[in-house]
Amino acid sequence: MIFEKVKEICERAKAASPAVASSKGNERNAFLSSFARLLVENTEELLLANGKDIESAAAAGISTAMLDRLRLTDKRIVSLSEGITALIGLSDPLGGGEVFTRPNGMEIKKIKVPLGVCGVIFEARPNVAADIAALCIKSGNAAVLRGGRECINTNLTIEALAKKALAEAGLPGDAVCLIPFTEREGANALMQMRGLVDVLIPRGGKGLIKSVTENSSVPVIETGAGNCHIYVHSDADFDLALSVIRNAKVSRPSVCNAIETVLVNGDVAADFLPRLKEIFDCDGVEIRGCEKTREIIECTPATEDDWEREYNDLICAVKVVACENCAVSHINRYGTGHSEAIITESRRSAELFCTMVDAACVYVNASTRFTDGGQFGFGAEVGISTQKLHARGPMGLSALTTDKYIISGNGQIRE
Amino acid sequence: MIFEKVKEICERAKAASPAVASSKGNERNAFLSSFARLLVENTEELLLANGKDIESAAAAGISTAMLDRLRLTDKRIVSLSEGITALIGLSDPLGGGEVFTRPNGMEIKKIKVPLGVCGVIFEARPNVAADIAALCIKSGNAAVLRGGRECINTNLTIEALAKKALAEAGLPGDAVCLIPFTEREGANALMQMRGLVDVLIPRGGKGLIKSVTENSSVPVIETGAGNCHIYVHSDADFDLALSVIRNAKVSRPSVCNAIETVLVNGDVAADFLPRLKEIFDCDGVEIRGCEKTREIIECTPATEDDWEREYNDLICAVKVVACENCAVSHINRYGTGHSEAIITESRRSAELFCTMVDAACVYVNASTRFTDGGQFGFGAEVGISTQKLHARGPMGLSALTTDKYIISGNGQIRE
Repeated sequence: MIFEKVKEICERAKAASPAVASSKGNERNAFLSSFARLLVENTEELLLANGKDIESAAAAGISTAMLDRLRLTDKRIVSLSEGITALIGLSDPLGGGEVFTRPNGMEIKKIKVPLGVCGVIFEARPNVAADIAALCIKSGNAAVLRGGRECINTNLTIEALAKKALAEAGLPGDAVCLIPFTEREGANALMQMRGLVDVLIPRGGKGLIKSVTENSSVPVIETGAGNCHIYVHSDADFDLALSVIRNAKVSRPSVCNAIETVLVNGDVAADFLPRLKEIFDCDGVEIRGCEKTREIIECTPATEDDWEREYNDLICAVKVVACENCAVSHINRYGTGHSEAIITESRRSAELFCTMVDAACVYVNASTRFTDGGQFGFGAEVGISTQKLHARGPMGLSALTTDKYIISGNGQIRE
Repeated sequence: MIFEKVKEICERAKAASPAVASSKGNERNAFLSSFARLLVENTEELLLANGKDIESAAAAGISTAMLDRLRLTDKRIVSLSEGITALIGLSDPLGGGEVFTRPNGMEIKKIKVPLGVCGVIFEARPNVAADIAALCIKSGNAAVLRGGRECINTNLTIEALAKKALAEAGLPGDAVCLIPFTEREGANALMQMRGLVDVLIPRGGKGLIKSVTENSSVPVIETGAGNCHIYVHSDADFDLALSVIRNAKVSRPSVCNAIETVLVNGDVAADFLPRLKEIFDCDGVEIRGCEKTREIIECTPATEDDWEREYNDLICAVKVVACENCAVSHINRYGTGHSEAIITESRRSAELFCTMVDAACVYVNASTRFTDGGQFGFGAEVGISTQKLHARGPMGLSALTTDKYIISGNGQIRE
């Protein structure tokens, strides 16, 4: 029953997708402009719907932190609207491309076209629905959204506003569809829509991402899992190291580009670790250290499990490593290929680290917290890919496009 | 047992991959040069091994066509060796990339790096093992190959020569590994090596590709399925149409860029179909026509199944369609997104067709048989992707690479 209804929604999105794909950039920008305006104009309606969600969520006893993430305010709606308006200024990711002529006179044009229908499964963040709808339409795609049950009323209101904005821009309303089934079957059905949905992007925690990558028959772009490390090399500037580590661990521990483990070269561990402990103590960060670490500073013993954990919290694993290769091996074994950093004054060590570490983003003397589409200057962020195929690292609008070759001739045949 | 051994092979390839990834372009070219030379120098040994394969295959009663595909000859070895030598001249697909500096002074460099370990499952074509080994090493990847049982002796000899060439170039021998288990378990095990193998490319028939896309936990690049169409528009030049259709159907019916169905606009069907039948009769092509086709020419009745079939044979489905949109709908419903063509003198119709057809390659007045890395001027071909993510259409060496961001700073932290 739910499966059939989800299929029907995806069929409608697919039927709408050619009209979006073949629309002009200014029509898609007109949608963004309307959508941004409608969100602000309908603040009252949005807050009313969001209020219902907050009420149910509070009654269900979810945490204050979750409630805060869920809550819309006048200010948050304005900021959401401004984010969408900012997309208008970004160049159209479609079309363009190279043209080359073959010796037989055939002209081959390689252009960027939309993927088609993008499915997004996300958790309780009401800004994601609006954000993703905007990114999909800007890049010529239809969007099928499936959000968490905690913000269903907010999401339904956002969907209605998106459809109104599509109508104002002369685009089909089915180009943005919300799956109103918040049961698990709703998400499971979406994962089986190969042929109707061209790509599925999970936006949320580790559990969600794992479930989608394991169960989806639709191609997936894996995002967000971040077990990130900073390696303090023997030639590190300690002050710089402490400042960067503190930023990467403490500034926002819940996000994927925060670090979970500090690796320290054995030659400098005895000097460095007491200073690390000092700042972590100040910030209330619990250290879980390897045996060698515990010979130098007092801390909780780390187990094998700690090297694999994304704490998303004020906890940091610390390990003393004998050499740079040991640091690289540890990172390549336990890391999620997201963001990794070395602190060193040695150019040679930095180069070796950057070459040997297998991750989307490798930093030298800077915080891993910069892994972000906005911080990289992409203007928009679809997510941070931790896979190697299609897109890797912060994804801009081009991650929602694919190639098409258009070949024009006058009767060429192959010998 | 087989699973464990396959895992061990993949672990060895993964362990070898950083050395290949960090090697210089000239070292990888040195491998190509040695490999090309060794293949020719060891012609006798290759022919001996291939002779054993041919003998077993003949005893097992495989078709003459299959036997021919399986057979190596002096000439074929030279041509294989020349193909590998030609890769030397292609520019290194690794490194390069853009550099941009952020307002905070951080320098972000986006470079191309190898995917890591590429797995390839292929059928009874002995040239594929050598070809793929060469393409993988040229692009800095390690390769794990699993070929059909029909050419196991030939493949083992090719693997030994590749390892010798790797040694001559100072690269680890484990960078090219053949899985010697030709049972189904060998392929199944390879499909479960997520984490060790970065991408799996099936090279072969529809059954193989389906089995790999459905069962692999390793990310797959889907290649080769080609249910291609030519649409004869009402403004078509008939002579041009007949020449192109004949080339696309008859020149090599067994390949994926050959056409399976001709769609004819209803306004010109009565004039065009008799001429089509004339040339198809000459070439011995069986026509399977829709009801309207059969009102005009004599032919086998087509069933629903015919619109879905890849005949790979001298059979062609023919359907009369009322309009261009009907042609597009048919193609988008039954096509595999490989190569589609329109024959028309109308620029407007050509543009509409190119925009609305959802395929990797869309042709105007030229044969679909040109969909090929060599014909497109890419110098090398990894396969023809029929998926939208990562790579679409003929894949050059860049399809075996991914992005890496290297960020250099002097202590930047995020506010």
